[in-house]
Amino acid sequence: MQATTHWRIVVEKAEIGLIGLAVMGSNLALNIAEKGNKIAVFNRTPQVTDEFYANAGALKDKIIPCKTIEEFVEAIRPPRPIIIMIKAGEPVDQQMAALQPYLDKGDIMIDAGNANFRDTIARFDRLKDTGLTFIGMGVSGGEEGARHGPSIMVGGTEESYKRVEKVLTSIAAKYNNEACCAWLGNDGAGHFVKTIHNGIEYADMQMIAEIYGILRDGLGKSAADISSIFGNWNKGRLNSYLIEITEKVLAAKDPATGNAVPDVILDKAGQKGTGKWSAIEAQNMGIPATAIEAAVAARSLSALKSQREAAEKIFGTPDYKFPIAFGPDLLKDLELALFAAKIGAYAQGFAVMAEASKEFNWSLPMPVIAKIWRAGCIIRSQFLDEITSAFTKAPDAANLIVTPAFAEMVKESIPSLRRIVSAATAAGLPVPALASALTYFDAYRQARGTANLIQAQRDFFGAHGFDRVDGKDIHHGPWGSGAQG
Amino acid sequence: MQATTHWRIVVEKAEIGLIGLAVMGSNLALNIAEKGNKIAVFNRTPQVTDEFYANAGALKDKIIPCKTIEEFVEAIRPPRPIIIMIKAGEPVDQQMAALQPYLDKGDIMIDAGNANFRDTIARFDRLKDTGLTFIGMGVSGGEEGARHGPSIMVGGTEESYKRVEKVLTSIAAKYNNEACCAWLGNDGAGHFVKTIHNGIEYADMQMIAEIYGILRDGLGKSAADISSIFGNWNKGRLNSYLIEITEKVLAAKDPATGNAVPDVILDKAGQKGTGKWSAIEAQNMGIPATAIEAAVAARSLSALKSQREAAEKIFGTPDYKFPIAFGPDLLKDLELALFAAKIGAYAQGFAVMAEASKEFNWSLPMPVIAKIWRAGCIIRSQFLDEITSAFTKAPDAANLIVTPAFAEMVKESIPSLRRIVSAATAAGLPVPALASALTYFDAYRQARGTANLIQAQRDFFGAHGFDRVDGKDIHHGPWGSGAQG
Repeated sequence: MQATTHWRIVVEKAEIGLIGLAVMGSNLALNIAEKGNKIAVFNRTPQVTDEFYANAGALKDKIIPCKTIEEFVEAIRPPRPIIIMIKAGEPVDQQMAALQPYLDKGDIMIDAGNANFRDTIARFDRLKDTGLTFIGMGVSGGEEGARHGPSIMVGGTEESYKRVEKVLTSIAAKYNNEACCAWLGNDGAGHFVKTIHNGIEYADMQMIAEIYGILRDGLGKSAADISSIFGNWNKGRLNSYLIEITEKVLAAKDPATGNAVPDVILDKAGQKGTGKWSAIEAQNMGIPATAIEAAVAARSLSALKSQREAAEKIFGTPDYKFPIAFGPDLLKDLELALFAAKIGAYAQGFAVMAEASKEFNWSLPMPVIAKIWRAGCIIRSQFLDEITSAFTKAPDAANLIVTPAFAEMVKESIPSLRRIVSAATAAGLPVPALASALTYFDAYRQARGTANLIQAQRDFFGAHGFDRVDGKDIHHGPWGSGAQG
Repeated sequence: MQATTHWRIVVEKAEIGLIGLAVMGSNLALNIAEKGNKIAVFNRTPQVTDEFYANAGALKDKIIPCKTIEEFVEAIRPPRPIIIMIKAGEPVDQQMAALQPYLDKGDIMIDAGNANFRDTIARFDRLKDTGLTFIGMGVSGGEEGARHGPSIMVGGTEESYKRVEKVLTSIAAKYNNEACCAWLGNDGAGHFVKTIHNGIEYADMQMIAEIYGILRDGLGKSAADISSIFGNWNKGRLNSYLIEITEKVLAAKDPATGNAVPDVILDKAGQKGTGKWSAIEAQNMGIPATAIEAAVAARSLSALKSQREAAEKIFGTPDYKFPIAFGPDLLKDLELALFAAKIGAYAQGFAVMAEASKEFNWSLPMPVIAKIWRAGCIIRSQFLDEITSAFTKAPDAANLIVTPAFAEMVKESIPSLRRIVSAATAAGLPVPALASALTYFDAYRQARGTANLIQAQRDFFGAHGFDRVDGKDIHHGPWGSGAQG
């Protein structure tokens, strides 16, 4: 009898292991168990493991709670995939070092935290000659996503992904029955794509906030009115999770005061590293990501509350009166303006990924990225299905906005963005992200720009040389002796 | 007699040494010699040293050309300051390593190249326990500046600066007889300030190019007309080296075609690392530098010439007709708009330096920085004298634009920037840097912004929490179970 029991335990080894049972880790573990995958779990503090297991209810069956690393590793079917879901940074390296002696050739450490992709590349490289391998996995969707279906962006070897593909696709969000999970490329590809996802998220949220500001300050609308407007937009082409929750948060009432919740919230936004990282990496590669940069800058400016209060005292409060009358036409313009600006932000994000794909040898599959963002993550939307389709039809497009489908949308919506930015600018309403998206478009579609003047200046003061429109072989100006500063 | 001669040579040791006789190094060496400082020079390839010396004319007297490192080091009066003026990066480390065995306690290696300040900090730290010390020195002004008076930004120990102060102030540019050279702080302070100088330079040049674009494309003006306009502006508050050379390059005629030089130059601008670095460091510290970012992005976009040509085919060429008629009023508006935008760019640059000063413990002296930029460097101008004065009177100002003098200038000029950005935006003329400066101002002077909505969204999907306007102790919205995405 003993022997039979022992045999039963052996065949039921866990498909996967997970270390770190804080909020994200425990939700992810429950999700994995619920989808029928046996999972071994471990937490540095064993009481946390006990509590997690005690509250797992019907899912206990699929969970192997472990008190020691030895026991934990032993419980997983080799080659062992082990998700590490702990605080990003140094702790991940420590956990990896603690785990490594217990692992065998082929085992896979999976960092599912919000790592900087450059750290992920370093970790991947460090394991290269050990026989072990490393996956950097971006997980978007917050606690709720972790528990019921996140968007999962995987970077590592394709072979290691094959080992975990079944588990990961089972727990991922679904869009039209397609799992929002994919292998995107080697080493840091998954964490990089997650970073750009967050950069786009920053831009998307900032643009919504700017339209909200126009409605609130430029047109005197109440939170309830604005909520209805976003609610209507959510039925149209702007349909997305972020528009949906904008309607909801504006409609919610604060229990303490009875006011709309946003009206009682201080206008100081926090930020994590990822938005900033996406702007920095875009800068590193020389790819314009001005809408993302504007969004990150807007959060930083929001934090300077006391400076802003002091400045308003000095410069006075504008009346902010929007120069276009409220009505169906303006509402249509605002909706289309937001849509056009959103296209600009996504175009920039995808352009940054296209360049990174070359720089880091990832061959990032653009249509697949758009596909796995359609559900589970914060920027999920119908819109991403249209991006999927546009990049599928035109995989070599230089930019999202020149794909045939998006070119048409841009043509239709840019005049609205132009009217809104021009009017908001005139009224003193800050629209940094909307304006950045517009000027990006205006510069991108200008065959003959003004950098010729900059090249003339650079040659004048630094003898940098220039190329000519006629291809002639004279690469410096006739500046004479007064030149060079 | 022999003994006397020997004695004479010993007392005339060089005050300073210089390694690297390429364009910048040889000009700097001649400048040093010309100001009466004896200098020892060394170049890896001795023929370069020979040629340099052969062409030094009357300055030979002050130059000790050296064939070997031993001879070179021996020729300098201890403690020996040695300027290294070679290609930035790896070569500097190699040169330092080659030099180090020959040096004595107290000797000073000075990197005068365009180093990233983070490398400078690393080099400074590396020498800490060797008895040697390191200066990172930003030199602005190109070849002509190196030869006749650059702006010099020094980072290192104050003691090491004392050793070179006399030589450096003798060769620096002068503004009202004050040398444009100063010790700015420890380790990387000098190279950091040089980096921000270049970021501001990018913004300044881009803003000029945008105004040029309005005149050329929106108002149909010729290069000659635009040259006169900048020439007039150079007599007013915009007076500066960059405006001066804008007038000149637009007036210059291409010998091959007879056309204005900028009209024959391709609109693809190059860039070095420093503009990008300044944007990245601003992002790193969370300080908005959107005008600098917009300028860097504009150069990147300019390089995508074939994409821009393809996009213009798809979206058509706008008529760009500027909605305000040309005339004295519009010219005044354009001048003031450029002035207001320039204030924004400089305010951002100084805000980035203020934060870096805290982060890196530099105590950067803002009035001194403005002072040493008044002459010698590319952004030199009358305007920097006004910044010097504003920061001298209000050393603790949170931002340049709220100093009393600049607040008045901003009040006077922002309405013009608003009209110009609004009109250019409506006409489809790309004005990314001008618009960034305006939205920066609009957001900065807004006591109640729109980040409250962003905080509501973040709490909804990520339970990030928020602060309240009324200080009550409820930090989450009543979202219920639908929340968290």
